[in-house]
Amino acid sequence: LAAGRARIAVDAMGGDRAPGAIVEGALEAARELGQDVVLVGDSEVIRRELDRLRADLPVQHASQVVGMAESPSDALRRKRHSSIRIAFELVKRGEADGVVSAGNSGATLALGMVVLGKLEGVDRPALASLLPSLEGRTLLIDVGANVDCRARNLLQFGLMGSLFLQHVLGVDKPRVGLLSIGEEDSKGNELVKRANELIRAGSLNFVGNVEGRDIFLGGADVVVCDGFVGNVCLKLAEGLAEAISRMLRTEFEGSLSSMAGYLLARGAFGRFKKTVDYSEYGGAPLLGINGIGIVSHGKSSPKAIKNAIKMAADFVRRDVNRHLTAGLKANAEMVAKAVAAGAEIG
Amino acid sequence: LAAGRARIAVDAMGGDRAPGAIVEGALEAARELGQDVVLVGDSEVIRRELDRLRADLPVQHASQVVGMAESPSDALRRKRHSSIRIAFELVKRGEADGVVSAGNSGATLALGMVVLGKLEGVDRPALASLLPSLEGRTLLIDVGANVDCRARNLLQFGLMGSLFLQHVLGVDKPRVGLLSIGEEDSKGNELVKRANELIRAGSLNFVGNVEGRDIFLGGADVVVCDGFVGNVCLKLAEGLAEAISRMLRTEFEGSLSSMAGYLLARGAFGRFKKTVDYSEYGGAPLLGINGIGIVSHGKSSPKAIKNAIKMAADFVRRDVNRHLTAGLKANAEMVAKAVAAGAEIG
Repeated sequence: LAAGRARIAVDAMGGDRAPGAIVEGALEAARELGQDVVLVGDSEVIRRELDRLRADLPVQHASQVVGMAESPSDALRRKRHSSIRIAFELVKRGEADGVVSAGNSGATLALGMVVLGKLEGVDRPALASLLPSLEGRTLLIDVGANVDCRARNLLQFGLMGSLFLQHVLGVDKPRVGLLSIGEEDSKGNELVKRANELIRAGSLNFVGNVEGRDIFLGGADVVVCDGFVGNVCLKLAEGLAEAISRMLRTEFEGSLSSMAGYLLARGAFGRFKKTVDYSEYGGAPLLGINGIGIVSHGKSSPKAIKNAIKMAADFVRRDVNRHLTAGLKANAEMVAKAVAAGAEIG
Repeated sequence: LAAGRARIAVDAMGGDRAPGAIVEGALEAARELGQDVVLVGDSEVIRRELDRLRADLPVQHASQVVGMAESPSDALRRKRHSSIRIAFELVKRGEADGVVSAGNSGATLALGMVVLGKLEGVDRPALASLLPSLEGRTLLIDVGANVDCRARNLLQFGLMGSLFLQHVLGVDKPRVGLLSIGEEDSKGNELVKRANELIRAGSLNFVGNVEGRDIFLGGADVVVCDGFVGNVCLKLAEGLAEAISRMLRTEFEGSLSSMAGYLLARGAFGRFKKTVDYSEYGGAPLLGINGIGIVSHGKSSPKAIKNAIKMAADFVRRDVNRHLTAGLKANAEMVAKAVAAGAEIG
């Protein structure tokens, strides 16, 4: 694909603020970034939004919508014409190069895997999330695609996360850490202890076990964990950030001098909020599928959608999946040996 | 034991600020709360601290100290005369009623279990931690005693956490949530799905699955998880709070008006910091051992130690272990039935 020609299919129906915020975000990507997009969903609804914005963008009709609370298996079986599915089918038919959805994330994961299949050498695709850290950012992988994992899955998550950072975000030799409850190799549950051995034997820039605190304080560029732990972490961080911000607000409302202080300090708060704002990154890439899928937050703003579309397009242009396939292949022999040697049982 | 006569053995050698902060905290507990304490550790060192503070408290000599980085198994095998061990032995001999240690937490867990044994009906003792929430506080259990768990362990953690909140902190019918990655019963890994069934069958005030965000936003009084997940959560929360506070500080240093704002708002920050300050709670109770052990943070201040001693004494006075034993017994038959029915395999 020529640079700039990546075409991104955007699920216009998914997310708490769909279709309005989604269509607006796609429009910003088209206008500000010159990005080629196609909006997927109920064409009447989408046309109405475009009219409201006095704009025009390509639309692909999809007659069904997966609800935010629907189970992925229901979405797979009963919604053959959902906007998420049609978006992935555009990629499969070569009519688009990547998908962005802020809709039901479980359904997006499942449909991405079912419609596009997995990359060669990938046992389990994984969802990666960029989180702010004092050093800039940390990629946490997996944040929810695989709740029960084997050690080899964690190794592959590390590989995929590392190659993504390297090729999409230009991080040189990303440092990969394994999320555990102590830095020593002997610390952790059975899964993590086995994964530590396996990752250490691989070709990654492995910095060993890291702890929950390191995700935000820095020390590793990629932090590897199973999807249950990663999802708990993601939501815990969201909840804590919200709780801290609400507690601070309550405190500031307590007295006139604090209120005055708050007003003076507002600029600092604004800049801080931007630092921890996930919409700067736009979405979480689903790594390991034979195509490109970005899962955006359900509450995505137009800006988050625009940035997710940008991430998907960069993903295409940098040909990340070719790098992933090559990287996985280079490590496959080592994994096979380790498995044969019994390092991987669980 | 008569009210007020609980005697707490305090490990004077454990923690980053030992012995100074520990001896000071014990002294505050004695003077401000009329608490009966005994300081355990190198008697010469402790006497020197007491002299410095112009105070006197009972001292029990212990010739060894477990280092903060030592493995629990080394502490068990090689340190027969460690201050932590001697403290638990005082409880075993009936010369003290509970232990507080800010030292090596793994060693404290291991020694508490080995020296005192488990309560009848407890398969695995667990470490519980009180975290601040918008509703007040949430008890997270287990935060590190058991990295690989079975469903029945999680049920028992829920029972113990619930009884602790009820009898030590006076929470009426504590709401128990199971930490998962979605509120539906079907969400979670294998362990959590089985635990959900088991806890639902029990006699707890079970509110179902909760997510990471609920720990800080509220919705459950007790949040149950395995010790790996709980420890990751605890350290993640610590790291995120630290990162947010450092990012805010950097922002405030950026301009004169923000600095002025910060100075005006300082009171609000101070009150906020107090809300999230673990030293208000003092420590994490080790629930399920045949005795009382409170694990304090390695960085404990005198105030944190004082509050941990108060928690241990309340634990004794409210006779929590009798309530725990009775509660576990009342649920034992249900667990046995569920296990026999195959609800518990993993």
